[in-house]
This record gives sequence, C-alpha cells and structure tokens, in this order.
Amino acid sequence: MTHPRLPMPVLLATLLAASPAIAQGPEEESPARAPTAQEILDASPDSDWREPDPENTLYMELEGGRVVIELAPGFAPEHVDNIRTLAREGFWDGLSIYRAQDNFVVQFGDPAAEGEDRKPLGSARESLPAEFERAGAGLDFVPLPDVDGWAHQAGFVDGFPAARAADGTTWLAHCYGMVGAGRGMAPDSSNGSELYVVIGQAPRQLDRNITTVGRVIDGIELLSATPRGPEPMGFYEDPSRRIPIRSVRLASEVPAHERTGLELLRTDSATFAAATEARRNRSDDWYHVPAGHIDLCNVPLPAREH
Amino acid sequence: MTHPRLPMPVLLATLLAASPAIAQGPEEESPARAPTAQEILDASPDSDWREPDPENTLYMELEGGRVVIELAPGFAPEHVDNIRTLAREGFWDGLSIYRAQDNFVVQFGDPAAEGEDRKPLGSARESLPAEFERAGAGLDFVPLPDVDGWAHQAGFVDGFPAARAADGTTWLAHCYGMVGAGRGMAPDSSNGSELYVVIGQAPRQLDRNITTVGRVIDGIELLSATPRGPEPMGFYEDPSRRIPIRSVRLASEVPAHERTGLELLRTDSATFAAATEARRNRSDDWYHVPAGHIDLCNVPLPAREH
Repeated sequence: MTHPRLPMPVLLATLLAASPAIAQGPEEESPARAPTAQEILDASPDSDWREPDPENTLYMELEGGRVVIELAPGFAPEHVDNIRTLAREGFWDGLSIYRAQDNFVVQFGDPAAEGEDRKPLGSARESLPAEFERAGAGLDFVPLPDVDGWAHQAGFVDGFPAARAADGTTWLAHCYGMVGAGRGMAPDSSNGSELYVVIGQAPRQLDRNITTVGRVIDGIELLSATPRGPEPMGFYEDPSRRIPIRSVRLASEVPAHERTGLELLRTDSATFAAATEARRNRSDDWYHVPAGHIDLCNVPLPAREH
Repeated sequence: MTHPRLPMPVLLATLLAASPAIAQGPEEESPARAPTAQEILDASPDSDWREPDPENTLYMELEGGRVVIELAPGFAPEHVDNIRTLAREGFWDGLSIYRAQDNFVVQFGDPAAEGEDRKPLGSARESLPAEFERAGAGLDFVPLPDVDGWAHQAGFVDGFPAARAADGTTWLAHCYGMVGAGRGMAPDSSNGSELYVVIGQAPRQLDRNITTVGRVIDGIELLSATPRGPEPMGFYEDPSRRIPIRSVRLASEVPAHERTGLELLRTDSATFAAATEARRNRSDDWYHVPAGHIDLCNVPLPAREH
C-alpha cells in the first residue's frame, strides 16, 4: 500500500487475506511459513494466465464505468449466440438496470420486456431451449477436494465455478458475479435479453433451474453497489431511478486499443491449485484457526491487468 | 404485488422464491403441493416470533435511514458491554462508514482510530479479550441437518447462525449481515469501536478468528449498496467520500414511539424448521430440480413489522 496506513489495531487490515488482488500479511521475513496465496500468484508463470476470447467477452458501459462479462458458450451455446446477436445489434443500448435485490441479484435489459412497447429483439430469437446443465463428456472439470452440500462435486471448468452430479452432468454454479438469463415459468422462456448478476450469498438453489451464461470478470462493484430497488424483488418502478446502460458490446467489436486488458488465472493451473490451498489453510499470522476448508464460491478467480 | 407486473416471461419474477419477505409463486390453487416458506410464515402463531431486547439492539442513523443491529451478548459479552458504553456516550455520532470492500465487508467507526487525533473512547475499554468462540454448555443450539464444510455442525442459536465443533465449542458464523469487531494482529486488540458488516459471500474463514458481536436485522441495504472504496481493501482515503453516521444508539435509550417495531422468527420454532425445509426442497412450480440442501448462510431469518 502506498498511502499512509489506516488504523491498524482495531481495523481489519489483515483481513486483506480474504481479498484476492492485494498483497497481504506482515512484511517481516518468516521463512518457515508457507507462502500466501498472493505470494503464489506473484510467482506464477505467464503461461498460467489467459486472455478471455473477445468473441466471448461483453462490455457493458455505464456512467460509472465498464462491466466486463465473460460468456460461457461451453455451457449455454444458444444463449451466448443470441447474446452476441443482441450485442451486435445494440439491443441493450439505452436500456437499464431495473432491478437490484439485496443479497440476491441485479438485473438489466428492457424493463418493458413484458409489455406491448417492448424493444424488438431484432435478429435475435424470442425464446431458447433451457441450457441449465450439460453432459460432462469433453469438459475439463478440475474438482475441489472440499465437500459441497449442493452437488456431488464442486470445481472449475475453464475459469467458471461449476458442479456436477455423480453421473457427470455438469452445470455452472450460482456464485457471486455469475450471470444468468432470466426466465418465466417455462424452462424455455429465456432469450438472454434480460440478464441477472449474483450480488449476494450464492443462491445455489438456482443451479440446474435456470440458464447461466457467464461471469462478471471486472467492474462488478458498478453493479453490486446499485441502490436496492424499493419495489418487491428490488424492482424500480420509477424509471428515473433505473441505471441507464450506454451500450453493451462484444469486445471483438471494440477497437483493440479501447479494450480492457485483462488476464485470468487458468483454473487448471498448478498456481490456481496452490493459491486455493493457501486460502484453505491460511498461513499468515493473523489467522489462529485455519479453516481447513474452502467453499466453491469463496475461491477467488484471480484477474490481472496486462 | 399491488403494482403492474413487470416483464414476466424473460424475468426472474419467480425467483421471488429466493426472497424471504415476499409472497411468492403462482396464485392458482394447487392443493397437492407442499406449502411454500411464505405460506408457512403466514400461518405461524404469534408465539413463534420475538421482539429483540432493546438493551441488545443498536440503531445506526444514516442519512438514508436506520440500520438495526441485534447484539449477541451470549457470544461476546465483553464486546457487547463495551459497545453499549460506546453507544450511550455517543462515540459513533459524527463518525463514518470509511470502508466498503466488494463481496466482503462494510466497516464503520473512527477512520483515525490508529492516529493521534483519534476520538477518545470515553468510559469504554481500550481492548478486550478475544471472544471468538465459547463452550456449548447452556446454549440452545438448533442444528441444521445439512452438511457444513466449515464445521462439525451448523445451526442456529437464539436467532443467530452458528456452528460448532465436535467438542461442543460454538461460534457465530460469518453469514451475510453478521457484525464483527475489527482487530489487529493480536487476538485481544479489538474493543468494539470499529465494526464490520458482511456484505458478500459468507467469509466463513473468519469464524473462530475474530469476535462476532451481532447481526443486522433491518436496513442492511443502506450498507450493502455503499459505493466501494477506491483504496486497497475498500477504504476511502478521501473523507468527503465517507458516509457520515448521525448517531448510534441503544434502542433502550430511544423513546418507545421512535423505535423500529420488529419481530424476528424464533429459530427454535416449528415454523422456522418448516420454512427452512420448504426452502431446502422448493415446491413451487418454477423449480425443476429442488436442491435437497440448504447452506447455513442461505437460510433466511425472517423479520416482520409489528
């Protein structure tokens, strides 16, 4: 930290250890202790990092800045295809964030989607098949050793938190920052135009019940700090309280020099496994009782600028 | 809902089922299905509800409204005692929320607590013994049947989410909305003046490592929607960005007609057990795959006005 330290003895400064992107712990040498997660990340080879594919990356431009979403075509190919079409045709431009429900989700798209004055979807499809889960064949599933109460096994696939059943059926897990496609009662009633982002305790009960399309990889604080909506379920009836969306674009359609330079740690790398183990059993001096456990949705998915 | 329904087919309207305080699901009669959690709550006897003790209730007054915190003297008697002293003497009046770290905590108190110009603690003690956990004897621990990766067993004690070891040692769990006392490296370096509130995925790795003093029972959206701080760990170096605290008072010191009329569902009631079971295995038509599981920190702790 380059600024004067804030109050220490009564502060959470060392809770830092819970934060993925910041150097942590005391500065003194302590050769006997195991490396912290940050030290492991700092020592990682470049080959353990990847750039998200611009064809799978959405930029949502808000007044406060840019939210970056990585799409998951491996799990929701038809939704991702529709989302690409909607972005190319500027569907979300001028629409809004119209819902913020505390400890649950922020949702954006067309607040009039149900009405007669809804915005046309252009070339995009009106409804899509449910893509709640998929067969495990062909997936590189990196399991966590930790018990998961919601599934047979929890782990990661290509940078996304995921879970699977004993028969290999696999789905994306509703962790903080995950993005899904709102739907009505019918499983095939979503089209990807109305998207929600998890901003609270992981609502894993939604797993296998709705199509998850990706994950916020940068700028989630622009969504999670949205004032909660006053109406039931956090909706804003008052249009003036909705948060305007300037545009949503595929990164591939944005000039290279305007793209967000982000690299994500590969979840199938040795660095990721070691950093997760360091968080499972904290070695910095602040902790007196290492948990010996980590929950799928507590595992940081490190990102860095490049 | 008394207002026109917002877009349904592509919306999350039925995700409502994940929200504790709102009527949910389709309106049609469906006699064969099991009651929903909301229906169970609606049918509950008044005896299943309790009023929090005004001596254990804090009101934090912000420009946006009131945050209500229930203290847990059964787990942190010395911290709660100090907090009562600090509130009686107006310690927090004119201080601020000076930290908001995304998916982690909001923290308030004296941003200068470490400096020479810190606000005196008055009659309150400068440091307190660690109250990270306690013996289980004398506690009415209501266990969840669900596996918990962080502890031998998870459950509830007097309205608080808690966990315990095989030997009965019991502690409060760092679920969304829990309030703890910031500390430095030394276990006994907290005094209750600098408090944090969990606003993200439950950081259960903090369990048994820091003193948890209570839970936000109303108004958490006034904290969780705080713009995230730009400095490391979400601190605001710029005083103008901090959120001023008008006052923090014990409810017992506020005139009765100015108190927030809240009742909380007793966690040792049959209603609570039945509502939790209904959320563990959703019976409304929206869900296709009931989870058959609930995480300690996903269990709503219902409140109602009275």
